Amino acid sequence: MNIYVLGLLFITLCLSQAKVIKEESDTCRELLSDELIKEIGSYENVRDEILNYVIEGEFKGKTYDELAKFVDKFGARPSGTEVLENSIDYMIELTRAEDINDIVTEELEVPQWTRGEERITMLEPRVKSISLLGLGRSVSTPPEGITAEVVVISDFLELENSPEEDIKGKIVIYDPVYTTYGETGVYRTQGASRAAAKGAVASLVRSITPFSINSPHTGAQTYNENVTKIPTAAITLEDVDLIRRITKRGERVVLKIEMTSSYDTKISRNTIIDLKGREKPESLVIVSGHIDSWDVGQGAMDDGGGIFVSWAAPVILKRLNLQPRRTVRTILWTAEELGLIGAYAYEEKHRDENHNINFIMESDEGTFAPLGLAVAGNQQARCIIAEILKLFKSINASTLIEDDSPGSDIAVITNTGIPGASLHNANERYFWFHHTEGDTMNVEDEHELDLGAAFWTTVAYIIADISIDIPR
Amino acid sequence: MNIYVLGLLFITLCLSQAKVIKEESDTCRELLSDELIKEIGSYENVRDEILNYVIEGEFKGKTYDELAKFVDKFGARPSGTEVLENSIDYMIELTRAEDINDIVTEELEVPQWTRGEERITMLEPRVKSISLLGLGRSVSTPPEGITAEVVVISDFLELENSPEEDIKGKIVIYDPVYTTYGETGVYRTQGASRAAAKGAVASLVRSITPFSINSPHTGAQTYNENVTKIPTAAITLEDVDLIRRITKRGERVVLKIEMTSSYDTKISRNTIIDLKGREKPESLVIVSGHIDSWDVGQGAMDDGGGIFVSWAAPVILKRLNLQPRRTVRTILWTAEELGLIGAYAYEEKHRDENHNINFIMESDEGTFAPLGLAVAGNQQARCIIAEILKLFKSINASTLIEDDSPGSDIAVITNTGIPGASLHNANERYFWFHHTEGDTMNVEDEHELDLGAAFWTTVAYIIADISIDIPR
Repeated sequence: MNIYVLGLLFITLCLSQAKVIKEESDTCRELLSDELIKEIGSYENVRDEILNYVIEGEFKGKTYDELAKFVDKFGARPSGTEVLENSIDYMIELTRAEDINDIVTEELEVPQWTRGEERITMLEPRVKSISLLGLGRSVSTPPEGITAEVVVISDFLELENSPEEDIKGKIVIYDPVYTTYGETGVYRTQGASRAAAKGAVASLVRSITPFSINSPHTGAQTYNENVTKIPTAAITLEDVDLIRRITKRGERVVLKIEMTSSYDTKISRNTIIDLKGREKPESLVIVSGHIDSWDVGQGAMDDGGGIFVSWAAPVILKRLNLQPRRTVRTILWTAEELGLIGAYAYEEKHRDENHNINFIMESDEGTFAPLGLAVAGNQQARCIIAEILKLFKSINASTLIEDDSPGSDIAVITNTGIPGASLHNANERYFWFHHTEGDTMNVEDEHELDLGAAFWTTVAYIIADISIDIPR
Repeated sequence: MNIYVLGLLFITLCLSQAKVIKEESDTCRELLSDELIKEIGSYENVRDEILNYVIEGEFKGKTYDELAKFVDKFGARPSGTEVLENSIDYMIELTRAEDINDIVTEELEVPQWTRGEERITMLEPRVKSISLLGLGRSVSTPPEGITAEVVVISDFLELENSPEEDIKGKIVIYDPVYTTYGETGVYRTQGASRAAAKGAVASLVRSITPFSINSPHTGAQTYNENVTKIPTAAITLEDVDLIRRITKRGERVVLKIEMTSSYDTKISRNTIIDLKGREKPESLVIVSGHIDSWDVGQGAMDDGGGIFVSWAAPVILKRLNLQPRRTVRTILWTAEELGLIGAYAYEEKHRDENHNINFIMESDEGTFAPLGLAVAGNQQARCIIAEILKLFKSINASTLIEDDSPGSDIAVITNTGIPGASLHNANERYFWFHHTEGDTMNVEDEHELDLGAAFWTTVAYIIADISIDIPR
């Protein structure tokens, strides 16, 4: 299993963990000293200062406005493209304009998968155009396309139990009904390899979403090493359900698939912005998001919002002259979408000093109204975070979710035992837009971004400033 | 103003009326005799028989299944196409299979507007593909396309007040924020003519919807006789809002529009299915929907659901041996989408006998859970309908909305003073899918269609069977 496969597993599994909302427990009362509780409570003035500044004061609307300017200027920022590198340069300039100059970029090799022409036509029982988006790293079809009968498969068990002659030479369509991203997403990430192993000539997956206006959702997938690389794409809920109904009636469905794409590697950069700590500058509280996006949509939600609430943290602290004990580091990961490439490179490069990461945070599941944090760490770490979250009752952001593998990129680091958290937010509609042409500024809300930036910044400040390190 | 323009005004205005939910009033108690109230109440047994048969009995799921088979077989059924005519033949066969043979079709000339290739590219300030759907009857661009700067206009007042040099040679983009279909829809139906009158070279409209996943919504429009016909299309909320933001920042936006289409006329048919009344067969209670659809999507919601609940009425009554006093007539209107063409032809052809229409109903605003009826008619007529609706409290379908111009096609007839009603249903999301690729079977719900068919059939039966005519 190469690191890309591992990355994809993280992306999908991290979002599928059984998550337990932590109740205020006796355990926490035992683990936290009265002094620490008192110390955390003493941050209410800083909390008020930041919240007022961002939600009602000078910074009001700034996160949305800066995100909109960025997204409108660059649009989609796929891994390996010049536009992604230009957007990284832009973020550096934007940060310097705030008189924050501790900025470094770290180069790494990233994949560049380029979508070409894509078309699927249903030929039988009637001619119908089928909307699609090829999946990341999908190979092209032959120039004449692939024309074959489809077989609709509900899950991998059904695939494995199917006689080889039912699959061989066919187009496999997976039609898992959406439950969670993690549970359903495996049919996107692994579907092609599993179908190819049984002799399928192409595989299609019902888009990984609970809702659609005939919207296909792209996303990453990887080929296992021992199978034929077959073309693979996502089609819409509507078309998969149509094909399922037709085949259930005993009719044959024949599709013609034409897809082109190319693959290359390029150099990209992780961007690291430091607001140095006043006492323990080597100790890091990291806030982060990924700057690359899919090639469809505008990358406003995934993960423009995440990079801008994380960018806002040092900016707001700097503007308010709030310099915490430890360093607040913002990381803009590159090349997340094709397998957490930037995160793996960072972890590897900094492995000898990663013990300096006191806490690592990421926002990559939407920047809707903040509700709290999904936290990885030991019991005491979670109790400390839960105590900090009590400060956010007024904005309804006090919920702690226990999540052993929060976020996407940061799971690479929290899985080494370092405590961290992902932004828990009111993202019920996140997957409606995820990896589609609908990932645009229209998903974002100015006030919710203000709340998110204020919350994110305050949490990072408190963790960076309190007298004790987050235990591990 | 030609009848097409009038038709479009109906389509949009009918859905925009200020609608008043009728409270049980003293007036109704004065207008309805105790005997009539008692007579209406006596239909509770028939109501139970129909509701049980459709919701729990042998007909359960039938409306959805038949709709799905129809929609899956034909897909979109645009006016003037062979597929529309084939779908009409199919409905006739389906009806005959129920041993209902009083079926006639009436030919009329209908427009055929055929969408060709369509593409819009933003050239400045950056290159971006803009999703679009040309509007009905739009002319083509020159082969080389139209490349021009845009001017974003909020409403017709702003357009009228703009100096001609600000509009001349430009592409006008209307960005009204969606309020109601009627209020906002005029920018789609009349936008091109109004912009052309000021010298614009093309006009685009923010899709008429409150919600989008980058989904363009097509629809009808007409050119006034005294203006240049300029190409016109709908683009997505997302792209209009993007362009608005860019222009607000003082930047120029340049688009290249390439559109082709063709226009012709063909012969189509209204389909009339009668379940003859046992005492007054010349007196009609009409239930209806339109069988044509836009060329995008599958015409499942608009108006597949409407034709199938209306088709179900005579079928269910026939199956249950319920022959009312008056005739229950199902009409499948043709060519609604380009201006109520079938309805105008029917009204004209039958003008001398339209006094025989006792009551006329249409379902063309979705077949989600039925809530009641939107009723046109005098006070006494509305009171009778309100009394009938009381029988549907158990399925939450007792609401009467006063609507002087309900439905789309039937407004042509109710506007001559004949009482009628449109299906009032839980259609909050109707315009999310309306005239888009998302108008598919996935919008439809089996149980809601059962409720709708049962409600529609029972209401039609009672009105067709009670001792008095609906007053006018």
